[in-house]
Amino acid sequence: MNPLINRDWCLELDRFDALSPLRDLYTLPFGQIYLNGNSLGPLPKETSNRLIHVIRDEWGADLVKSWNSAGWIDLAQKIGNKIARLVGAGENELIVADSTSINLYKALYSALKIQGVNLSTRQIILSEVDNFPSDLYMARSICHDYGAKLQLVDDPGQIETALSQQVAIVLLTEVNYRSAYLHDMRRITYLAHEAGALVIWDLSHSAGALPIDLMGCDVDFAVGCGYKFLCGGPGAPGFIWINPRLVDKLSHPLWGWLSHNEPFSFSTGYTQAAGIRGYQCGTPPILSLAALEMGVDTLLQAEPLGGMEKIREKAQKLADLFIAGINGLGKDFDISLVSPETAENRGCHVSIQLKGNLAQHSYAVMQALIARGVTGDFRTGDPKQSRQPDILRFGLTALTLRFVDVADALEHLKQVLKKQEWQLPQYQKKRKVT
Amino acid sequence: MNPLINRDWCLELDRFDALSPLRDLYTLPFGQIYLNGNSLGPLPKETSNRLIHVIRDEWGADLVKSWNSAGWIDLAQKIGNKIARLVGAGENELIVADSTSINLYKALYSALKIQGVNLSTRQIILSEVDNFPSDLYMARSICHDYGAKLQLVDDPGQIETALSQQVAIVLLTEVNYRSAYLHDMRRITYLAHEAGALVIWDLSHSAGALPIDLMGCDVDFAVGCGYKFLCGGPGAPGFIWINPRLVDKLSHPLWGWLSHNEPFSFSTGYTQAAGIRGYQCGTPPILSLAALEMGVDTLLQAEPLGGMEKIREKAQKLADLFIAGINGLGKDFDISLVSPETAENRGCHVSIQLKGNLAQHSYAVMQALIARGVTGDFRTGDPKQSRQPDILRFGLTALTLRFVDVADALEHLKQVLKKQEWQLPQYQKKRKVT
Repeated sequence: MNPLINRDWCLELDRFDALSPLRDLYTLPFGQIYLNGNSLGPLPKETSNRLIHVIRDEWGADLVKSWNSAGWIDLAQKIGNKIARLVGAGENELIVADSTSINLYKALYSALKIQGVNLSTRQIILSEVDNFPSDLYMARSICHDYGAKLQLVDDPGQIETALSQQVAIVLLTEVNYRSAYLHDMRRITYLAHEAGALVIWDLSHSAGALPIDLMGCDVDFAVGCGYKFLCGGPGAPGFIWINPRLVDKLSHPLWGWLSHNEPFSFSTGYTQAAGIRGYQCGTPPILSLAALEMGVDTLLQAEPLGGMEKIREKAQKLADLFIAGINGLGKDFDISLVSPETAENRGCHVSIQLKGNLAQHSYAVMQALIARGVTGDFRTGDPKQSRQPDILRFGLTALTLRFVDVADALEHLKQVLKKQEWQLPQYQKKRKVT
Repeated sequence: MNPLINRDWCLELDRFDALSPLRDLYTLPFGQIYLNGNSLGPLPKETSNRLIHVIRDEWGADLVKSWNSAGWIDLAQKIGNKIARLVGAGENELIVADSTSINLYKALYSALKIQGVNLSTRQIILSEVDNFPSDLYMARSICHDYGAKLQLVDDPGQIETALSQQVAIVLLTEVNYRSAYLHDMRRITYLAHEAGALVIWDLSHSAGALPIDLMGCDVDFAVGCGYKFLCGGPGAPGFIWINPRLVDKLSHPLWGWLSHNEPFSFSTGYTQAAGIRGYQCGTPPILSLAALEMGVDTLLQAEPLGGMEKIREKAQKLADLFIAGINGLGKDFDISLVSPETAENRGCHVSIQLKGNLAQHSYAVMQALIARGVTGDFRTGDPKQSRQPDILRFGLTALTLRFVDVADALEHLKQVLKKQEWQLPQYQKKRKVT
C-alpha cells in the first residue's frame, strides 16, 4: 500500500505552521507520538523548575509567610483570571477550586436553589445519556437529595426538542468525551433561557482546546478540568465560573473558610464571600496549583500568535488530516469514524470504532499502537452498556503535535492492522485503567 | 535578668534525645526557629527529589500510563494506609481525599442520614464555640439544608453535660487550634455513644502530633489535615476515616467517579464503592499527594524509635520547657498562659496572651519575634468577637525542634518585651494573613 498521507507534504505544513515554535515549550517523550493530551496534557518545560522553586524557596525557606509573600492566598484567583482569558470570561469571575465534580455540585445546587426550592413546576435536570458519566453521577446525587429529576436524551440533537417549561437546568459537556461532538453553546444557551432554564456547561474537553465565549453566549455556569488541555498535571484542580449577573444571588453548601466573606476573622458565623471567591471551600493544594499556572501560562504564550483561534484552526487541520487517513484506511479495514466529519461540529479529538471481526480486538489494537509509541486511549463504547463497539480515541492538540506526527501515527495504525499485531499475546491482556 | 532557661542544660537534653537524628530529615530555614509546624509543617528533604521524579519521569515521560505504572490510581489509598498507622486505624479504612472541610461535609451528611432523616427527636449537632471556625461553617451548612440545629457550648468541659437524647452528632476537634486544649477522645466518644449520638473527630491539630487510637476509642468518623503535622506541603489534601462497622451503611452526596464502585465502567448509573474508597470524589491532585506521602513517610521514620508515643513524649517536654519559660517571663511582664498547664490536657502547641497595656500590641510583638527569626503565629482571641486579648501561638513539634531552640526562642521573646521592640513602626503594620 502507498502511505496514507504524503509525509513530505506534512513536513511542509509544519514548516509554515506559525505555532510550531511553541512545541518546544513542552517536554514530549522521546520517540513517542502522544495523542492523549485530552486525557492528561503533557508537561510544560517550565513546570518542574517552577515547582522546585515553590517547594524549596516558598515552602522550604519562607514557610508559612509565603501565604502572603508568595501570593499563595490569591493563587487560585490569579490562575482563574488567566483561564478566564481562554474562555471568554472577565476578571475575578472564574476561580480554581477543588475538582470539576465538586465544582459541578456547587453549580447544580446553586442553579436548583435559584430555580426555586419548590420544584413542582420545574423539576428536570436535562442532559444526555452520553454526557461524561461523573457529571451524571453528580446530577443524580442532586436529584436524590433535592427531588429533581434527571432526564437524559439519547442523542445530542434532541436537547433542543426536550426543552420544556419543566426543565430547571440544562447540564451539558461542550465537547463530548467520547465522540468529540461539539455542542452549539450559543444556540443551546439561548434556547434554554427562552424556556426558562439555567445552563451549566462542563468545559473539561474544550477549555484550552477551542475558543469559548462564556459571556458572549450569556452562559449561567461553567466548570472545567485543569489536567487535560490546560496541562496542569495529573489531578490538577478544577475551575468554576458563574455569570456575574447571577453570582451574588447564589449560595452553595460547601461552606469553607475560603468562601467566607472574612476568611481571617475566624468568626464562628458564616457569610459567603461576594463574587466567585465565595465558590472556593478549603485550602487549595498549592503545589498542584503552581503546576496548573505553568500549564495555563504556556497556553497563553500562543496569544501573540493568534491565541485560541489559531490553536483551534491548527487543531482542526490536524484532525481533518487524521480523518482523511482514517477514511483511507477504511478502504482496506472495517473502521468507522465516531466523531463528526465536519470540523466545526467536532472538538479536539477524533474517535474511531473498529467493526466486524476487528471490533472485539479494539483494546489490543490500542495496546499495539502504544507499543509502537503512538499513545491514544480506549473508551468503552456504550454508556447504556449494551454491545456497541468500543472506541479508540486520539487527541489532536495543536501546540504539541506536528502534521508529520499525524502522518506517522496513521502509518503505525495501518501497520498494526495490516500485520495483525493485535494478535500478539502481550496486547491481549485485560485492560486495567484507561 | 538571668536567662529564663539554662541553655547548657538544653544542649544536654538534645544530646540525649533519641529523636534528634530525625531533625536532619527536614529542610529547616537557616538561622530560624520555626514554631509554626502546627500551621504549615516544614519541608521534608526527600520531598523535592520525589516531586522532581513525579513531574519529570511519571508525568513528563510516562504520561497517562502512570495512572497504572506509577500507581497514581491507588496513591490516595496508599497514603491513607500510612496515615492510618499514625492514628490507630486499620488497612483500607482511611483515605486521602479533597480537603478537610469537604471530608467533614461528607461525614456530617453521612452521620445525619444514619441518625434518621426525620430529626424530630435528634436534631442537634453539638460542638463548642471555640471549635475551628470552618468546622462550624460546615456544620451550619448541614443544619441549614437538613434541618439540624447547631448547639455550641462555651467551654470544652461542658460537652459532657450537654449530651442528651436530642444530640445526633458530636463534632469536635481533638486539639483546639487556639488553646491546644486536648479533649479526652475515649471518654467523650463513650459518653456520646451512651447518649445515642455519633461522634466526628477533626484530627487536624492532632494527627502526627500525638498518639491517636481511633479504633480503640470506637470513634465513628474522623477527618484531618495533611499540611500541618503531616508535613504534606501547603494545602495538602485532607483525609477521612470511617469506622468499618459503619462505612458500608453510609452514603455521602459528592458522587464522583472515584467513589463509584466501578470507576472504569463509565456507566451512567451510580453505585457507591464499598468501604472508604466510596468517600473519594474526583481525581486527586497527584503532585500534592506525592508531597503528602513524603511528609507521612518522614514521620513514620520515627516508628523504630518509638513512633508517636516517643514523639508525644518529647513534644510534651518541649512544651513544658516553654511554659516554664513563660512562667518566668510572667514575673516581669503581663503574660498569661492560654493553654492547659498540664501536659496530658494539651496538644502540641502553646498559646499565650499578653495582658494589660501589652495586649493591644500582641500582633506587633509577634512581628518583632518573626523579625528575630522566631516564627510563631497570631490568632484572634475571641470566637465570639468580643474583646478578649489576642493569642500568640507557638508550635512545639518534636521532630524538627531542639530543646535549645526553645531556650533561644524564649530569650528572643524576653528581649522583644524588654526592649519594647514591638514599638518599632515596621511591626505596627496592619495584619494581613495569618
